[in-house]
Order: sequence, then C-alpha cells, then structure tokens
Amino acid sequence: MSKIAVLGYGTVGSGVVEVIEKNQDIVSRNAGEAVEVKYVLDLRDFPGDPIQDRVVHDVNVILEDPEISVVCETMGGNEPAYTFSKKALEAGKSVCTSNKELVANHGPELIRIAKEHNCNYFFEASVGGGIPIIRPMIEALTAEHVVEISGIVNGTTNYILTKMTEEGADFDETLKDAQNKGYAERNPEADIEGYDARRKIAILSGLMSGQYVKDGDIHTEGITAISKADIQYAAQLGMNIKLLARSKQTKHGYEVMVAPFLVGKESPLYAVSGVFNGIVVEGDMLGQAMFYGQGAGKLATASAVVGDVVEAVQKAGKHVEIFWSQEPAKLAGLDEAEHAFLVRVANDTPQESVAKLFGEPEVVIENLVEGEYAFMTASMAEAQFNEKYEALAGTIGRIRLM
Amino acid sequence: MSKIAVLGYGTVGSGVVEVIEKNQDIVSRNAGEAVEVKYVLDLRDFPGDPIQDRVVHDVNVILEDPEISVVCETMGGNEPAYTFSKKALEAGKSVCTSNKELVANHGPELIRIAKEHNCNYFFEASVGGGIPIIRPMIEALTAEHVVEISGIVNGTTNYILTKMTEEGADFDETLKDAQNKGYAERNPEADIEGYDARRKIAILSGLMSGQYVKDGDIHTEGITAISKADIQYAAQLGMNIKLLARSKQTKHGYEVMVAPFLVGKESPLYAVSGVFNGIVVEGDMLGQAMFYGQGAGKLATASAVVGDVVEAVQKAGKHVEIFWSQEPAKLAGLDEAEHAFLVRVANDTPQESVAKLFGEPEVVIENLVEGEYAFMTASMAEAQFNEKYEALAGTIGRIRLM
Repeated sequence: MSKIAVLGYGTVGSGVVEVIEKNQDIVSRNAGEAVEVKYVLDLRDFPGDPIQDRVVHDVNVILEDPEISVVCETMGGNEPAYTFSKKALEAGKSVCTSNKELVANHGPELIRIAKEHNCNYFFEASVGGGIPIIRPMIEALTAEHVVEISGIVNGTTNYILTKMTEEGADFDETLKDAQNKGYAERNPEADIEGYDARRKIAILSGLMSGQYVKDGDIHTEGITAISKADIQYAAQLGMNIKLLARSKQTKHGYEVMVAPFLVGKESPLYAVSGVFNGIVVEGDMLGQAMFYGQGAGKLATASAVVGDVVEAVQKAGKHVEIFWSQEPAKLAGLDEAEHAFLVRVANDTPQESVAKLFGEPEVVIENLVEGEYAFMTASMAEAQFNEKYEALAGTIGRIRLM
Repeated sequence: MSKIAVLGYGTVGSGVVEVIEKNQDIVSRNAGEAVEVKYVLDLRDFPGDPIQDRVVHDVNVILEDPEISVVCETMGGNEPAYTFSKKALEAGKSVCTSNKELVANHGPELIRIAKEHNCNYFFEASVGGGIPIIRPMIEALTAEHVVEISGIVNGTTNYILTKMTEEGADFDETLKDAQNKGYAERNPEADIEGYDARRKIAILSGLMSGQYVKDGDIHTEGITAISKADIQYAAQLGMNIKLLARSKQTKHGYEVMVAPFLVGKESPLYAVSGVFNGIVVEGDMLGQAMFYGQGAGKLATASAVVGDVVEAVQKAGKHVEIFWSQEPAKLAGLDEAEHAFLVRVANDTPQESVAKLFGEPEVVIENLVEGEYAFMTASMAEAQFNEKYEALAGTIGRIRLM
C-alpha cells in the first residue's frame, strides 16, 4: 500500500482523487500495490465531501509523515508550490505535478533535487493535459535527436481560431462566446497572449535540448491581432491559422517562438481543431510523429498525474534520469529565424513597390477584402523581412507561414 | 559498455546498426553506457559492409556469449525467430523486436519467459513503426481503462485509399501504381487483405485486455472490394474510406475487427492520409488520444527497436512488467457488433422496399453512380443488418460507418 498526498483540491486535485478511486483496480495493478490518498492539503474545508476527514491545512503534516511516499502538486503557480515541492523532494517524497508554470521555471532544479534524494519529479500533465508527450519523449524517443517540435498546445486559442474560421466571426465576439461557454477564462490573458503556450514550449524545449530555456526569453505573439480578414486569406490559401509553439534546432541555436502561423493541409496540425491539442515531434531518424488529444480537462489531466504516481510508486527509492539541466540553452535570435510571410497591403500601394522590395511574389490575393490585397513573400530571415516590411507603404499586417 | 546482437540484416536490422552508429551519443546518454553491435546474424555475408567482420551464421555464437546482453530480432516471420527469441530470453538476454507476426502469435509466452529469466521482451516497433504507441500504453496510460482502440495501422492500404480518393482511380490501377512506387509489395496480399493490420490490432487488443487475442479469430475484411463508386459516395458524404483496425470493450466481450469504414471529419483519423498511420486510443478518464506518424520506414522502425534497446540496457537484470497473459480474451461475436451501414442498391429496387426493411432512411444518395442509389441505415447489430440486407433485392454492396 502506497500512501500519497494531494496539494490543492481544485479542478485537477479533485480529479486526481477521483481517478485514483474510480480506477483503483488498474492503478494498483500497474503500480504493483494499492494507492491511497491519505491527505488533501487545501486552505478550505470540504464538509460533506468524501475527503473531508483527510483535509489538512498545514503542509508539514504531509512532509513529516514518513508514510507518504508521493505528493501530487496540483496547486498551480510558483509559490507556495515551489517551496512545498522542494521540501517534499528533500524529504525523499516523489512529486507529480500538473503545474506548468513551476515546471517551466524550476523544472531542472527540482529534477536535480529529486536526484539528490533518490526520488522523482514527474510532470506529464504539465503539457498537453492527458496526452502522453513528456514520457514518450523521455522514455520512448531515446534513440532520436529531436530536431524540431511544433505544437498546438493551448485549447482555448485553438477553439477561438477554429470558431473564427467556421463562423467567419471576429476575435472579440468569439472570445466572448468562448468565455460564456467556459472555454476561456474571465481573465483570458494567459491564453490569448500566448503565455500558457510559452510555458509549455519552454518545457518541451528543455527536454529537447537537455538545457534550460527561460520562458520569458521566448518570442511570443498571441492571437489578439488576428482578424476576420486574416482568416479569409487563410481560407483562400486552403490553410488554417493556428497558434503554434515551436522549437527548432538551427545552426544559430534553438529557435523558440510562439506565434500565429498559416498552416497548410500537408501538416497534421492543419486538422487539429476546437479545444484539441496536437504536438508534432520531429526526430532525425523517425521523421514526424504527432501526439493528439484534449489538452485539458479535469479527468484527463488528473489521469496524467496519476500515471506519474504509478511510475513513482513502481520506482520508489530509484531516481529516473531526466536529462534537463539548469545550464541555459543557446537560443537563436528572432532576427535569424526564416519564414515566408503573407503580407496585407492597402490597394493604394502599387504592386511594383512590392516587387521592388520583395521580388515578384508567386501568390497575390486581390479583391478578397475591401481596400486591400495580400501577397506571399519568399522565405527569408526575420531581420531582412522586417527591413523590407518597414520600407513598404500601406502595410496592414503580416502572418508567418509554417 | 553494452554489447548487443542483431538477428537478420535486412531493412530493419541494417537500420538498427545505422541508428546505433549515427546516434551513438544520444543512445549511450540515455542507456547510461555505450551500446555496441558485436554480432549480426544472417545467412548471407556482406563483404565490404562495415559490419562484415561481425557477421555470424550460427546463432549459438550469440546465445553462448555472456557479453551479449540484448538481442534485436529483426528477421520477421515465426521461425526461426521464435526459437531464437526464446533461447535468447532463456539465456537471460533481453529481446527487442520489430516482428509483429511473432509478437501477435507468441507475445504473452515470450513475456512470461522474459519474466522468468529477469530480462525483457520489448516490441515497440511491431505496431506503428517508429511511432511510440506500445510504450505510452504500457508506461504512460497507466491510470486508464482503455475502452477502445481504432487505428489506421497499414500504410500501404492507406496510401491506396488516399490515391483512389484524390485521383478518382480504381483499386487495381492504384495498386499497380503503388507497387511501381515501392509502396506496395509484389505480393500485396498481407496488406490489402488486412492481415498485417490484423496482427497489429491483435497486439494492441492484448495490451488493452491484458489477455490473448488470436489474430486468426479477428474478423477481417481487406480493401480489394472497395471501388471508385464507394469512394464517390464517401466524398458525397464528406467522409473518407479508411481501413480501420478496431478493438472495443463491450458487454459481449472485446469486439475486434479489421474492415474498411466510412470515417467522418469529426474523427482525427479522417485526415490521416497517404502512408501515414494514426492510432486513436480511448481511455475512460482521458477520452481520445491519437498517435500519428509514418508507420513504417527503415530508420523510423529501427529507431523504435533501438529505443527498446536503451530501456533494456537501463533495466538490465530487472523485468519490466507487461500485463499481457496467455489467457484467451473473451471476444464478442461479429453478429453483436453495432454499426450503421451505407448500402448501395440498383435503381430497380423501389425505395419502399428499403423503407419496409430498414425504416425510412435519413440519408439517400441518388444519381451519383449510374444505375444505382445508396442509403444509410440506422445503427444496428450486424446479425440484424445481414438479415435485412439479404432480404433486400438488388443490393450492390455495403460499407460500415465508423
């Protein structure tokens, strides 16, 4: 019998309790012994809830109980999650988390501490909810140099972009609709500005490079500037606009960014719609593999945390090596990133001006949106593109091609 | 330093040598020590090949060498692969295989032997080539009851169906084209009759149920009867025809089958085209997750074998529990499987006859193919459907809806 504690009885934390109870048979079969939730840490009480007698308000009860071998940290945020996780690991208790913010900020350090104390820091649920992505990267793609990761890792923005595409709606009204349906939060900034996606690509880039990528260093553009007109151009091209989180090994270093991209049908990400997530991992031997599913949801995310608990119990007293050091990864500058761009320009701007700066474009879309046209550039470094773009009169916007 | 042997220097076997040499850095980092191919077993010699001095013709050289800790079985077929694998495991050497036929036939037995000798029988490459699917099922989805698996697991048939759809071509000419391009074998039976897919779903059903599903017991229909007209009806419905390998937990037992299905856009399998594979795993907590990529290819498949080698080296002397027993799983009869069907009928058959047998259909497609029409039935048990279908005059064919 393994006894565990759950820190934070919110959506994911209560899901963890539910998954362990509902799937006790399969969890104990796979763990090799029964798994029981002994404590739930929360500031609140939950009278009437089946766990009411297991609620504690003081983390030290958990940290000082030698019976507790695994702690699920489902609180979110940096503090007190960081301090609690660190102390649990220092006490030799494995920590399984869904907290992407903490993993992005302190993952390598917490893995190191886990190693020093012969326990584990696992974080499958921090990216892609219930979709297995961290464990396949660590435990399956072990003969691969991963050279690129491109993912749709935020369900809220993908839902909004999908709705805008299906209904020809504007961003603002679609966001409101998503908020009313509970797919977007009242304060949607972390999603729509790309900060949530940035944390996830920071984690995946860390596993890809084996080094630390600070999420604040990642160039990030959200979807707030995407308009109905952008969607119309994408449709005209037979493409979809997706908020991609990307990380690519280049000769200049790791090129990591979050931004909206035009995605063509040849990419498996084209068809990832609604609240679904899809993460394409490209290896030097494997080529592309995609991991797809609902990237959030109470039970799916909780299932990933409990999957981590199963492994933590199986490997009690033994650290599982995860190659992710605190050493900073070398990042390529945005200036060096190469992309083709779709550029929207006012009709006043003669196409000769475009041709003079960018060369004769192969794709020009006219008369789709009133008062403007658009053209596709060749692939070029961002610095070079920006110079030309600034020199062109009448520009309305630009969007990268994947 | 771990020394390994490769049995069979064909496509996958030579790929294993190549992956280990090219990615020695990452392989040895992940394995915890360097991995070296000491022997290659083949009936042939390979003069001029870098491995020429390592070729042996007698498997006993490998079996009797205590330095060899892991054997890669990339020979294919039942014998002598079965005997060699068994002897290797009995000698305490882990076996990593790409041989789906052998895994489907003898997987549970070889896992048991591995357990008895504190070593491992790993088979990630037996399904989906380089796509991680076996390991995620065993090591990540450990808090899930997997209730259904539906996959496109054969690239050749998916290529043919995709080409038929894109080019409006007939089966025979498309098969010839696929053979000329090397996407289908000269003797294509195992692919087009669904036997390859059947082996793979036998393996996945075994992991899903924890019991043995004999591939010969699985109802299997290939794609040879799929015509240009079927594809036209699918297009009219906004669907694609896919050869699906499916396994589903039902109250009657496990419903396992391989057959062409109409797949609508709401399924992530709809967009899996060309030689790509996609496997949707549905768990009771997770919902659906899909694993997608190229299901074959020398280096991708070899990479999966080497990934197994890495784990075998990491866990030397320790058996990794895989719950797949020799106990036969209870299979549901085909009669009890429930599906909706698209039925094609000659124009001579009055629609009243259809309505009398099947009720008024919600979908009827007329004037798409000369001399016939088609209608969609409600979902019903196969036995019930077959009775009605046989009673209807002028039927031309039927295809299941996913």
